[in-house]
Amino acid sequence: MTRICLIGAGPSGMSMLYHLAKMEEQGKCIPDVVCYEKQSNCGGLWNFDWRTGVDEHGEPIHGSMYRHLWTNLAKECFELPDYTFDHHFGKSIPSFTTREVTLDYLSGRWKTVNATKFVRLNTIVKNVVYNPDEDNFTVWARDQVEDKDLPSEQFSHIVVATGHFSVPNMPYFKGVETFPGRVLHSHDFRDAREFKGKELLVIGSSFSAEDISLQCVKFGAKSIVCSSRSGPMGFKWPEEIKEKPLLERIEGQTVFFKDGTFTEVDAIIYCTGYKHTFSFLPDNLRLQTENTLYPPNLYKGIVWIKTGNNKLMYIGMQNQYYTMTMFDVQSFWACRVILGEKTLPERDIMETDMSRWIQKLERVTSIPDGIDFQTEYVMDLCGDSGYQHNLDVKDIFQDLNRKRKESIITYKDNVFKSKFTGTVSCKHHKPFMSVFDDSYDAIVN
Amino acid sequence: MTRICLIGAGPSGMSMLYHLAKMEEQGKCIPDVVCYEKQSNCGGLWNFDWRTGVDEHGEPIHGSMYRHLWTNLAKECFELPDYTFDHHFGKSIPSFTTREVTLDYLSGRWKTVNATKFVRLNTIVKNVVYNPDEDNFTVWARDQVEDKDLPSEQFSHIVVATGHFSVPNMPYFKGVETFPGRVLHSHDFRDAREFKGKELLVIGSSFSAEDISLQCVKFGAKSIVCSSRSGPMGFKWPEEIKEKPLLERIEGQTVFFKDGTFTEVDAIIYCTGYKHTFSFLPDNLRLQTENTLYPPNLYKGIVWIKTGNNKLMYIGMQNQYYTMTMFDVQSFWACRVILGEKTLPERDIMETDMSRWIQKLERVTSIPDGIDFQTEYVMDLCGDSGYQHNLDVKDIFQDLNRKRKESIITYKDNVFKSKFTGTVSCKHHKPFMSVFDDSYDAIVN
Repeated sequence: MTRICLIGAGPSGMSMLYHLAKMEEQGKCIPDVVCYEKQSNCGGLWNFDWRTGVDEHGEPIHGSMYRHLWTNLAKECFELPDYTFDHHFGKSIPSFTTREVTLDYLSGRWKTVNATKFVRLNTIVKNVVYNPDEDNFTVWARDQVEDKDLPSEQFSHIVVATGHFSVPNMPYFKGVETFPGRVLHSHDFRDAREFKGKELLVIGSSFSAEDISLQCVKFGAKSIVCSSRSGPMGFKWPEEIKEKPLLERIEGQTVFFKDGTFTEVDAIIYCTGYKHTFSFLPDNLRLQTENTLYPPNLYKGIVWIKTGNNKLMYIGMQNQYYTMTMFDVQSFWACRVILGEKTLPERDIMETDMSRWIQKLERVTSIPDGIDFQTEYVMDLCGDSGYQHNLDVKDIFQDLNRKRKESIITYKDNVFKSKFTGTVSCKHHKPFMSVFDDSYDAIVN
Repeated sequence: MTRICLIGAGPSGMSMLYHLAKMEEQGKCIPDVVCYEKQSNCGGLWNFDWRTGVDEHGEPIHGSMYRHLWTNLAKECFELPDYTFDHHFGKSIPSFTTREVTLDYLSGRWKTVNATKFVRLNTIVKNVVYNPDEDNFTVWARDQVEDKDLPSEQFSHIVVATGHFSVPNMPYFKGVETFPGRVLHSHDFRDAREFKGKELLVIGSSFSAEDISLQCVKFGAKSIVCSSRSGPMGFKWPEEIKEKPLLERIEGQTVFFKDGTFTEVDAIIYCTGYKHTFSFLPDNLRLQTENTLYPPNLYKGIVWIKTGNNKLMYIGMQNQYYTMTMFDVQSFWACRVILGEKTLPERDIMETDMSRWIQKLERVTSIPDGIDFQTEYVMDLCGDSGYQHNLDVKDIFQDLNRKRKESIITYKDNVFKSKFTGTVSCKHHKPFMSVFDDSYDAIVN
């Protein structure tokens, strides 16, 4: 009997439930599905959590969301073709949305088919075991509100949609244990106003480093030194932000860089990325990977080939340019496979396919290359699953990337045109760097 | 076959290993013992960890230690009679010790019998199951450095010594999610210097609230408002510290109290205690308790009576006046039971004994009562196990408590006399509130 255990009710998991609920609405017989969600709400990373560290039950906090986050993608890059922004809001809104607005949009789509009915909130998966004799999986979960282990359950399929921006990668630097101020990872960053008037060291050179540095300047940080291994980000920064090579060591409040220069700072923010971590899975089911556009051992980036039965799947485990739409087509593809509407090829064909992608990935050396690669991946899934829409928004991505390189300070003031409605976004009432109230009302109304 | 799984290599776990190693040294045949320790060092809470939240493997940080912590007990309250401070340091040191000095003392004792040889560092216990047919336990662990599940192992006995000051109790207050500054639990407090010049709200009225408030004033916080449900702590505070009733709500930076007063603060520190949490244990083995001087379902405060075989034990799960010496006699008592040198009475006698203690506990209504209660508990274990020393230091505790009530600012400047050596501690070179360098060298040399 087909019975699906879905782990995680963020954008990826909810896309899978959306497709299942929609199929059911269309009169299809869908299998039993249970979605376990650790948080008290659906939406994954898009929920804001005032806590850091562990939650009220002692489990690591999932969220890495900060109060004033704006998407670093124009919404036209992740708009879902069967549920457009125009449809949800009934009017045009700016291209760069905020956390409340984004979550509102996503949950609007789930609500159309009551997809949340499958979700058990506040429930953690503790362990999953594959039973080769029965060719199924046993899942142990715990109800955190009742503070009780749940009876173990059997499932034919496991779908892991727990995200990979939750467990901080936080390397040691000599002397960090002597630093007198706050040392935090971007995972624990909640509100830039904490750092008003402060001198900061930001370690890292990827999206978090760039966005958190700008946030802090916007909300009044005195100065920011960005340090990275991979060389300067090279944007035209506001004068408060300077770039330095990699941090070498820390002595008290003084941070020393590889080039021999040093400065004093009040706090250190690690923007050094995340680790793919699945503490609820045993080694034989556990994806082990760097953050890459094509993780190993996943056919079509989805099916875990190492158990051999192809009934363990992962959604959204790629590094991401495409986000919501990629999760959506992955989920749709996975549903069709699980429902038996689509047959997987033999193992050797799957391996050849994976090798082909991994070879292609070796030629990706820039952001534009990455956008092209992931566009091709998403379009391959569209074709292979019979997804009804063309998700290629490569041109918007490339245009956005050029604008971002031209001006990191103003790129969120740009407007883009929806591929699906033709609507050109309206402008924010003020430039990004002058908008301090980015509540739902302020952005939408 | 007797085979012990000990979980945790803090002061409690190391006391058990000390006794086993010592028995071995004395020519006794001791059972196989494996101690699993999540951290990379022995010493439990006494290790300082610059990280907060999760460790480099994504597991919740164990430690709640802050840089400038001094014991709030005179060392004469926790001195181990067979390994005195005089013996370890070769001279008299002050009564109130610091984290480095305390850990150095504790580890000195372990080293005398090489007790760390039983410890597997960086190894987490993921699950424990009791097998009624075999009357043993299966333990699943994971080597965090190798990032590998270890083969499951069978044990006759489980001893849980993981402490109960690791998982924050952090209640919600209306509006906390809108507060723009840092909101942290004392578990994540690392260095008071972060709060220099700041106005703080400290929630709570127990030892952490008192100690962290004083720390922050000592290192330059501008003002501190202490808010608590249970009424003012009532000490003669320095002028920077004021007491308020319970927090009612938060609006932006403004915190409102039950009495209608309000103030603006820069950061909120929860000193609201910890939860007994054992996420690696299933419900049938899991101690569920408030922080109390006599947790339920533990015969002699140690043996878990609910599995029926009396082979699951907990060390150090009590609320604590006595610390190191209580863990030590508990460990000694547990060793004697496990080695068969001591027989447990029938179930009904154990239940009568537990009821007697719990009835007695109902009459404890003050700190002096609590000290007397725990003295009696510790002395009962001494007698019952044939522990070679008299651990009663009630008089020192009561004297200390009086001095603390007289002056919270100066009580750590007092000296006490060791029950075991007769030595009167030397004084610190300066009063507590003026000592800013409390490194090992500064305190000992």
